[in-house]
Amino acid sequence: MSLLVIGTVAFDEVETPFGKTGKILGGAGTYIGLAASHLTNNIRIVSVVGGDFPQSHLDLMKNHGIDTSGIKIIPDGKTFFWAGKYHENMNIRDTLVTELNVLADFDPVVPEEFKNSEYLMLGNLTPAIQKRVIEQMDPKPKLICMDTMNFWMDIALDDLLEVITMIDVLTINDEEARQLSGEYSLVKAARKILTMGPRYLIVKKGEHGALLFFEDQMFFAPAMPLEEVFDPTGAGDTFAGGFMGYLAKTGDVGFENMKRAIIYGSAMASFTVEKFGTDKLLELDEQKIQDRLDDFMQLMAVKF
Amino acid sequence: MSLLVIGTVAFDEVETPFGKTGKILGGAGTYIGLAASHLTNNIRIVSVVGGDFPQSHLDLMKNHGIDTSGIKIIPDGKTFFWAGKYHENMNIRDTLVTELNVLADFDPVVPEEFKNSEYLMLGNLTPAIQKRVIEQMDPKPKLICMDTMNFWMDIALDDLLEVITMIDVLTINDEEARQLSGEYSLVKAARKILTMGPRYLIVKKGEHGALLFFEDQMFFAPAMPLEEVFDPTGAGDTFAGGFMGYLAKTGDVGFENMKRAIIYGSAMASFTVEKFGTDKLLELDEQKIQDRLDDFMQLMAVKF
Repeated sequence: MSLLVIGTVAFDEVETPFGKTGKILGGAGTYIGLAASHLTNNIRIVSVVGGDFPQSHLDLMKNHGIDTSGIKIIPDGKTFFWAGKYHENMNIRDTLVTELNVLADFDPVVPEEFKNSEYLMLGNLTPAIQKRVIEQMDPKPKLICMDTMNFWMDIALDDLLEVITMIDVLTINDEEARQLSGEYSLVKAARKILTMGPRYLIVKKGEHGALLFFEDQMFFAPAMPLEEVFDPTGAGDTFAGGFMGYLAKTGDVGFENMKRAIIYGSAMASFTVEKFGTDKLLELDEQKIQDRLDDFMQLMAVKF
Repeated sequence: MSLLVIGTVAFDEVETPFGKTGKILGGAGTYIGLAASHLTNNIRIVSVVGGDFPQSHLDLMKNHGIDTSGIKIIPDGKTFFWAGKYHENMNIRDTLVTELNVLADFDPVVPEEFKNSEYLMLGNLTPAIQKRVIEQMDPKPKLICMDTMNFWMDIALDDLLEVITMIDVLTINDEEARQLSGEYSLVKAARKILTMGPRYLIVKKGEHGALLFFEDQMFFAPAMPLEEVFDPTGAGDTFAGGFMGYLAKTGDVGFENMKRAIIYGSAMASFTVEKFGTDKLLELDEQKIQDRLDDFMQLMAVKF
């Protein structure tokens, strides 16, 4: 089935204890698209870049089966740029540079031929923009998943509360779930958030895994303990891409399949952090993904 | 099979956002023993208390099938006392009072009839004392599990490194695993620690679950997301008690059974934190434990 991704396509510059990159391909839309591309086809992306964005990056996405015709190129604009530095524990990062550039005026127009996409993944963007994308879809997608962050809870809470009434799955981290709900207990937080609109809530806990809440049920997917976390950039977006890619491939949005999709999301994310930027995502194949899936099933395997 | 528990029997005074207790029954040995008592019998404890320790607390343990004849009572001494305060997130606690009292001179003598215990759980104590307990056992127990903490890594590392060559299972938290190994990655930390003596390493991550490492295999057990964490005191010790209680009951120390034991440990710990002190542990029955086990299996259930 078709998957439409809305999200940034950007330049990142990352410093970790393992080294420093130059300006590399980044952005939520990029990670979501590339991760999903390993699981399904018929992926479309809507984004914006500047004239400085190399054709080779667009070709790379195309070669992964992503329809990039919805990426608007603004010839005299500059591509969104983010630079950050991670400290040893990799949980804390300092943002060194955020240059919105062409993203500042991003008002995504969903191309006619994308409007019927069955799965819609809204990467972290201004809630008002996420809403305008949803309004352009026709018919309503089978499943809308949305990522957001505490920043929008701070400065655009009303818009955020409105757009989450229009979606099916919300992905946020544990601190954001607490902030959005005003509840410290994640169980209570989830119960409250599930009354705000989404049918499913995914609470991302980074290296501590992810929780899926649905009605009065919970599912927990661990993160894979790794030899080395090299660069956490894009892990959350990769998770979302793996999750939506699996759902779009299987076409089943029931709770049991959501669980499988979360394991796929976790598996894809566990790859991304093993190298800088998108490097690891680019060298994956079906066998490597299956092996990692097997590792996850081993990690969780217990029988009574 | 028989389980010998070495650990503190104490008074605790706890303050959480939910309220404040007076002096209540506490101590690692207490939590370990009570948790294990729900899963197995033939539990013995070696500890020390002062003349101020009420007979009713001893009776309570006896009523749970724990042989308390190894608890030395020092009539003119005072029982170990700890007071602490938890903040909203319950992960950080301030120790307000630590009065070692009779614990200061604790040099456990294992009664003759306890020396052949098949399972030995060494609660967090001075490594030198843990070692002297092991040396008194005859024959060597089928399984020795030991808990410790960063404090001993700071002030008695040589003793600690010696005693862990004599044990089978080490339980520590993630930060302690990092400190002991000098490795940030838990996978690397575990690999190093498994060369130091223990065959199994359990890394406790509190609300984020627990990891079991054995040879080149890993197993992850989530913590149960709860409506409310009321008082985290004793959660780690309860975990150890549930873990060892299940092993002693089943008599199987292979990797597959260790996984089951960790789920039992996690289940028992999830109860303890729901009320102050040992209150919740005291009101459990077989059905409640089975229901919680089922909840855990639900939380982890995914099929491909």
